Order: sequence, then structure tokens, then C-alpha cells
Amino acid sequence: MRFIVADWGTTRFRGYLIENETILDQVSSEEGVSALQKGEHRGVFLKHCGRWLEAEPNAPVLLVGMVGSREGWVEAPYATCPAGVAEIAKALIPVEIGNGRKGHIIPGLFCEPAPGAADVMRGEETLVLGTGIENGVVCSAGTHPKWILVREGRIERFATYMTGEMYALMLEHSMIGRPATEPADQKGFDMGLDAAQRNSGTDGAARVGLLHLLFCARAAVVSGRMASNLLAPYLSGLLTGDEINGALAQFGRPSSVTILADHARADLYVHALARLGIKTELKVPQQALLAGLTRIVREHSQS
Amino acid sequence: MRFIVADWGTTRFRGYLIENETILDQVSSEEGVSALQKGEHRGVFLKHCGRWLEAEPNAPVLLVGMVGSREGWVEAPYATCPAGVAEIAKALIPVEIGNGRKGHIIPGLFCEPAPGAADVMRGEETLVLGTGIENGVVCSAGTHPKWILVREGRIERFATYMTGEMYALMLEHSMIGRPATEPADQKGFDMGLDAAQRNSGTDGAARVGLLHLLFCARAAVVSGRMASNLLAPYLSGLLTGDEINGALAQFGRPSSVTILADHARADLYVHALARLGIKTELKVPQQALLAGLTRIVREHSQS
Repeated sequence: MRFIVADWGTTRFRGYLIENETILDQVSSEEGVSALQKGEHRGVFLKHCGRWLEAEPNAPVLLVGMVGSREGWVEAPYATCPAGVAEIAKALIPVEIGNGRKGHIIPGLFCEPAPGAADVMRGEETLVLGTGIENGVVCSAGTHPKWILVREGRIERFATYMTGEMYALMLEHSMIGRPATEPADQKGFDMGLDAAQRNSGTDGAARVGLLHLLFCARAAVVSGRMASNLLAPYLSGLLTGDEINGALAQFGRPSSVTILADHARADLYVHALARLGIKTELKVPQQALLAGLTRIVREHSQS
Repeated sequence: MRFIVADWGTTRFRGYLIENETILDQVSSEEGVSALQKGEHRGVFLKHCGRWLEAEPNAPVLLVGMVGSREGWVEAPYATCPAGVAEIAKALIPVEIGNGRKGHIIPGLFCEPAPGAADVMRGEETLVLGTGIENGVVCSAGTHPKWILVREGRIERFATYMTGEMYALMLEHSMIGRPATEPADQKGFDMGLDAAQRNSGTDGAARVGLLHLLFCARAAVVSGRMASNLLAPYLSGLLTGDEINGALAQFGRPSSVTILADHARADLYVHALARLGIKTELKVPQQALLAGLTRIVREHSQS
């Protein structure tokens, strides 16, 4: 089946013409959701995908990502976990794309990872479905990494960590990262993982807290205890390790985790989890996206 | 004894003429350390304090705060914990102020709050000495709150938390605080303390981690689970509670904590600690500063 997709995130628009999990044609622009005003989305979509709409008058149209957020084209209410392909296909939100033709926005997911807590995703649900995993823990790494528990092919619950954004905040806007110098010495990453490990509470040491450990990283540099070119990788290791501490507390300690990330980022998780004796399997986000979209569009067209 | 002080922080210069813990005259400007280049400090100091130097040719001159940092007038190496008034007075760093007269920079303190960790302060040591506390735990609240263990009148060790800076980062630079609306509903502060308490590991719940709980705060608002005017106080409560979790892990669980802070900020700690059954005693920072400076200048003039 041939279908048209807009993978529409905060900072980028990506259009695809897809058949059998293969990209026949694609387009990309920086007209992400955050760059647009209400009412502009349809025009941007038609500008980039109009020729496919004409050429394929019967192709289904799917939209995925932040396009369904409050700042997006139409706010698509979150579907609730647990959710698999059937629940998500049933919850697609139609949007008018012109001449009576409809596109369908894939809703994000909401869950309560713990009593009283709330968490959301928009887009990662499609990637997770695309991995084809029936039971296991997936880590979708990115600016806001998500750890996702899959049971019997459905997303049971998940937890998001602001690790990547926090790293950027530390280096770009905080006095914590100010003493960092380039070129960075990647040995700092393991030192940061060590610090997070000591703070995990698993080896009897006091859990002194992330807000303290971040300050200590700066203090180590300004007091001459740590070389300034270790600081940035140290912060990356500390934050990644703290995320992993939390994820293992949330989801138990799986023997293996599936990492959904580009190579450079995935390597960090592979390394950090190997130190804890946890195996990893890598999945390429782009392939998972295509597979997940294909599953959803098939389920939708059969219903 | 009459003496001259520059309390010279990152953003402000404050000059005082002091006698018997009383301010006889004072001056203040926005020429903080971060606003000055190397070589400008002496001129700024003389501009503000020159008339006192002339009128009191024999008065000791003390400089305290970030003036001793790498970005300051002269870098004053940190003294090492444990340190009391004797150790600090002995470690004063002389600086030439003109005509052969010397001022003395009060060195900051360095400690290893835990094996392999490093922490530093510049200025708070003087306030803590000014409290006159012989044994106890002090919380010097501010942008970077410091918890300080005092034993037999000496600063034994301390731990800094980037709580206040993190709160500002969340509201000013992060997508976490973006959905926050005014006027804020202060009930959110207790909700944030509740979330931190659940994450303390003391009541059997999983320690899901601060990087996750920060994201959850945003998720609760965008999913309609929490009113947007609760978000900012919620983040304040979550961060303050996480700091307190860490401080209690570091310093045991004292029955009472001395809070060094202005009234509004002190109230938050009084409230948060009262929920945990911990008593608080308040000290006014300005009074503690004057008392601490007086102790150091007396000790120095006797040595």
C-alpha cells in the first residue's frame, strides 16, 4: 500500500511518500511546529506534499509528532496506555486537507508511570510499534529520552527524562558548564557515570542528589580537582547515569534493553548499560518509523 | 574596633564601614565581579571606599565573596575544611590597595563532602562563623543553597545544591516551565514537595529521578492533569524537596536546622522542614555577615 506521511516535529517538517516500508520520495524543511502560527499548517503541508496528493488520489495520509500538540495543526487528545496498534489506529484524529480529503493525526500517548504522576509522548509510540517488540523495555534516546515498557505488543507505560535538554541547559545557560573547555576529553563520560552510580543508592553510599552533583562538577574544576576539558563529558555521563538509575527503578532491571537512537547517541547507552551488565539491541529510528507507520495505516484501512 | 569591608559578589559591590557589628556607613553598586575586567577592581574599591580609607588610616580592610575568585581582584586559594575562625584568619590573602596599605581577602572554603566529590564556597563561611553556632547544621539559602555541618565551632563539611539556579533555568530557558501561567497558585509548592517526598526512597516508592519528575510536571499541565498556574510553585517545591532529600542523606536527619536567609526564602524552608518534623531557627544574613567579619578581623589583628 502506498501512503503519504508528514513527520512533523517541533523544529522540522519531513514529508514522505511510502510503499512497503520503503521511501519513494521525500521532502524536508525547517517549518517545524514551533515556527508556525495557527492556520498555517495546511498550507505548509500542501506546499510540500501537494504533488503526491495529486498523483495518489487514494493514498491514505498520516501525520505524526508534535503536529497533534496544542501548538500543532489540530490538537489530538492523547490516547491512554496501555495502547497497541489497534488502540492507536482507532484513536486517529481526522484533519481536513482540502477537496474533502482527510489526513489522520496519530495521537500521542498519556500514561501514569507512577501513582499521581503524568507522562506524555508524541511520535515515539509509532517508532516503538515499528520495532515489532512484543515484550521488553525500549529506550528511545533523544533530547527527552523515553523508556518504554512493552507488554504483549502494547505500550504498557513509559517515563520521559529531560536528560538531553538538561545537558544543553548546563552548557549554554548555566554557570555549571561555564568552565568547560574544548576539545573535550571523553574520559569524563565514565567519571560522570561513576558519580551517578555512587548516587544510585545501590552500593550503600548516601544519595546526595543530582542538584548537588551538578554543582560539584563545577566545583571540581574551579578548585583545580578536575581538568576543564573533562567537564562537558562528565556532565553528560552524570545526567545519563542519573536517567538510567531512575529508569531501572521504574522498570526493574531488564537483562536487555532495545535502544532506538542514531549511532553516536546509541553508543553512549550501550556503553553505560554494559557497565551495569545489561545487554542492548539497537534499532534505527528511521526504519522503526516506517515500520510503525505501515502497521498503523494497515490497521486503519482495515477498520 | 573600626574596620572597612567590601562584600563583593558576582553581581553587586557593597562597601561598609563597621564598628562593633554596627554599620557606620555603607555604599552599594552594580559593579559586581562579573561586570569587571582584570585590573579594574582596585579602582572600583577606591572610588567607593576611598573616603573611609583616608578618614581611618589604621582601620583593617577585609574583602569577602567572589572578589577572591578567578574572575576577582586576586585569586584567593580555597582554605580546606574543617575550618573555623582561626584557620580562616590565618589564610587571609593580602592585596595591595595603595600607598603600601593592604587589604585582606577572606578565602573561600573547599571540602570533599563525599569521597571523590568536591565542593566550594566563597562568602558563606563568614556568615556561618557569624551565627556563633558551635554544633549543628546550617542551611544558607540562595541561588545555590549550601548545607553546612558545624562541629566545635568549625565548618566540618558542606554541600551545595543548584536549586535556585535550576528553578530559574526551568522557567526562563526550558520547555519544562513554558506552560506556566500567572498569577501562580502557591498550593503547587506543597504538591511539588509531595512529589519529591515520594522520590526520597524513604517510603518504599521507586526513586524515579529528578530528570523524570521535571518532565512529568510539564506533562501534567499539557495533558490537562494540573492547572498551569500551579506549575511554577510545583517546580519550586519539587526542587526544594529534592535538595532537602539530598541534604538529609548527606548530614543525617538533624532535629533542628539553622536557616540563613531573607524572610520570604526562609519561609519556604521552614515550611518544607516542618512537614518532616524538623525544627528551624532563623538567622538574618546581614547580621551574620557583620558578626562573622568582626570575628575574623579580631582574630586577624590578634595574630
